[in-house]
Amino acid sequence: MPDFGFVGESKARELFGDKRYEATRTNAPAGRRRDLIRLADSVVFGQVYPRPGLTPEQRSLSTVAALTVLGQLPQLRAHVTGALNVGVSEDEIAEVITQMAMYAGFPAALNAMQVADECFDAVATERKK
Amino acid sequence: MPDFGFVGESKARELFGDKRYEATRTNAPAGRRRDLIRLADSVVFGQVYPRPGLTPEQRSLSTVAALTVLGQLPQLRAHVTGALNVGVSEDEIAEVITQMAMYAGFPAALNAMQVADECFDAVATERKK
Amino acid sequence: MPDFGFVGESKARELFGDKRYEATRTNAPAGRRRDLIRLADSVVFGQVYPRPGLTPEQRSLSTVAALTVLGQLPQLRAHVTGALNVGVSEDEIAEVITQMAMYAGFPAALNAMQVADECFDAVATERKK
Amino acid sequence: MPDFGFVGESKARELFGDKRYEATRTNAPAGRRRDLIRLADSVVFGQVYPRPGLTPEQRSLSTVAALTVLGQLPQLRAHVTGALNVGVSEDEIAEVITQMAMYAGFPAALNAMQVADECFDAVATERKK
Amino acid sequence: MPDFGFVGESKARELFGDKRYEATRTNAPAGRRRDLIRLADSVVFGQVYPRPGLTPEQRSLSTVAALTVLGQLPQLRAHVTGALNVGVSEDEIAEVITQMAMYAGFPAALNAMQVADECFDAVATERKK
Amino acid sequence: MPDFGFVGESKARELFGDKRYEATRTNAPAGRRRDLIRLADSVVFGQVYPRPGLTPEQRSLSTVAALTVLGQLPQLRAHVTGALNVGVSEDEIAEVITQMAMYAGFPAALNAMQVADECFDAVATERKK
Repeated sequence: MPDFGFVGESKARELFGDKRYEATRTNAPAGRRRDLIRLADSVVFGQVYPRPGLTPEQRSLSTVAALTVLGQLPQLRAHVTGALNVGVSEDEIAEVITQMAMYAGFPAALNAMQVADECFDAVATERKK
Repeated sequence: MPDFGFVGESKARELFGDKRYEATRTNAPAGRRRDLIRLADSVVFGQVYPRPGLTPEQRSLSTVAALTVLGQLPQLRAHVTGALNVGVSEDEIAEVITQMAMYAGFPAALNAMQVADECFDAVATERKK
Repeated sequence: MPDFGFVGESKARELFGDKRYEATRTNAPAGRRRDLIRLADSVVFGQVYPRPGLTPEQRSLSTVAALTVLGQLPQLRAHVTGALNVGVSEDEIAEVITQMAMYAGFPAALNAMQVADECFDAVATERKK
Repeated sequence: MPDFGFVGESKARELFGDKRYEATRTNAPAGRRRDLIRLADSVVFGQVYPRPGLTPEQRSLSTVAALTVLGQLPQLRAHVTGALNVGVSEDEIAEVITQMAMYAGFPAALNAMQVADECFDAVATERKK
Repeated sequence: MPDFGFVGESKARELFGDKRYEATRTNAPAGRRRDLIRLADSVVFGQVYPRPGLTPEQRSLSTVAALTVLGQLPQLRAHVTGALNVGVSEDEIAEVITQMAMYAGFPAALNAMQVADECFDAVATERKK
Repeated sequence: MPDFGFVGESKARELFGDKRYEATRTNAPAGRRRDLIRLADSVVFGQVYPRPGLTPEQRSLSTVAALTVLGQLPQLRAHVTGALNVGVSEDEIAEVITQMAMYAGFPAALNAMQVADECFDAVATERKK
């Protein structure tokens, strides 16, 4: 059995970038939430994301769909930025969110799109530097 | 402005196949639900699915993600079969559903996977004929 | 303080009709669910529905909206029939369900409309007798 | 086929008022969310709200019910104010939200009522001017 | 029939403490929300919490589970603090939230845990005084 | 790192009983759902349930709360029976479900209680043999 914590860290760094990984994990204040992130990384990024069958782009887009439907906006923010990191385009992200209006209603899509717009701006600004 | 009803019918036939399209639309018993399907086809398949930015495979996988999270199993059944029709593989569908366990919990994923297994069997049987 | 159980019984009989009231309450098999229905009747129909500010028609339509969004189909069935009993029209019920597609997605509306169609048929058949 | 964008704009102006319409549409910063609002207006206000069968008051109250259940508070804020614009009373709005406690739980109703109180105050202040 | 308002006030004071009770009830600004809190106290704390069959600790932990799943964070904040008041340990609260990741997904659990961490810190600071 | 699959199997057998474990795992027909159950067992019962901080009774009751709120009835059926197996009483289960009416609405609680009643009857019948 591989070390899921180790695999998860590497996958999470790849997706979110080292800077964000360290801000939310290594350098985050001690507490129950930090412990839970460690468990989440080990399960989500250590045991599920490394499975074959989907490309990283497909995993990111499916996650954007899920978080839009669920209205989990802090996680959506992280994953929209992650999606751009692994090569998903702004158009793809915006279209998936638009399509979610059909299945989960317009309010869910509108609130998610606001988060996406903010991520698009932040990444564009970052890349210009 | 294009005729959304016309575009929607053509997209819906492409996704679900003529046989299922006719069973659930043209030949369905009159009633409010049939009227609502007509509106849904015009909006979902006439105005959203034809937008550029995503391939049909990407639209299908995002829809599978959404319906798994929402637990809308009758629609999931239609869209898993539709996904296979447009060339999405069983592996891709099963992996998206598995990944949803991370974002919406294991029960949502398990109940969706039961529907997927049934669709996989039905399509395999159909193709053998 | 009024006797909420007594008020609730009278309101619930008014909405659902004596026959359904008795089938699901007085004559229902003993069990935890029957106890919970008694609590629900006392709270919902004894303490909330009798409040001023909304007509019975408005309460019924709002409940149809809520149950459509929540996907609680057994309760939707009871309340669509109840809405017809207090004078809400089929058109009003069907339009509220249609509108829910905008806020909670098309699958929620489509599954609710199937229940509504079945209630409309059952009540029409009953009235013809 | 009517021009849904045109019909939708007129309906949305009627419901939200010109000032709010322009702040969130015409004068909103360009971005994906503004594009999605245009689609939403065309579908929701251009194709669904103009359907016969419900009065504007009934549509507004059903929407308040839906947004309370869904916990979509930014949209609830817009629609509570819209409901007051089309002649729904504070009592009716508050009673629908109260009733939602029965179907979606007290937390959903309490969080919605806080938004409603804020809208009631803002509109009362506005009207005094 | 007991006076549910009276019983509810006593239960709510026990759970939340007099200071918080008064801040959110007696001394809260008049408005629809305050009226709804009165109804909620009468039903939730006056008619349900006093029922036999569960200890106060069990009721608190079940409520923490429910509010985590629902993502109702303002109520979660009140009930995590309440749980500590009635003798539930930080470990128990954190474990229930962790377990919810399995049934409702990691985002729901992570967002709830952030609230819990804040409550744990606030109560620890308060107790040190 | 322990073998999570092994720990998970032992925990799941303890909770659900060998007979149900084998019917749904070892002897279940091959398919994607069986693979997903294996992952779920490894994560849920192998990595989360064995954590210290909660008794098995507390884990079961929290799960009953979660599944009631989510309306995931097939899983609720398994976990109500599991709760009885680890020593939770019918009263405790019924009270947790009743309390969920306050947080997630009466329909969620009523539909869950029907499942609970069926489990109570099935276990009572089984024990009489």
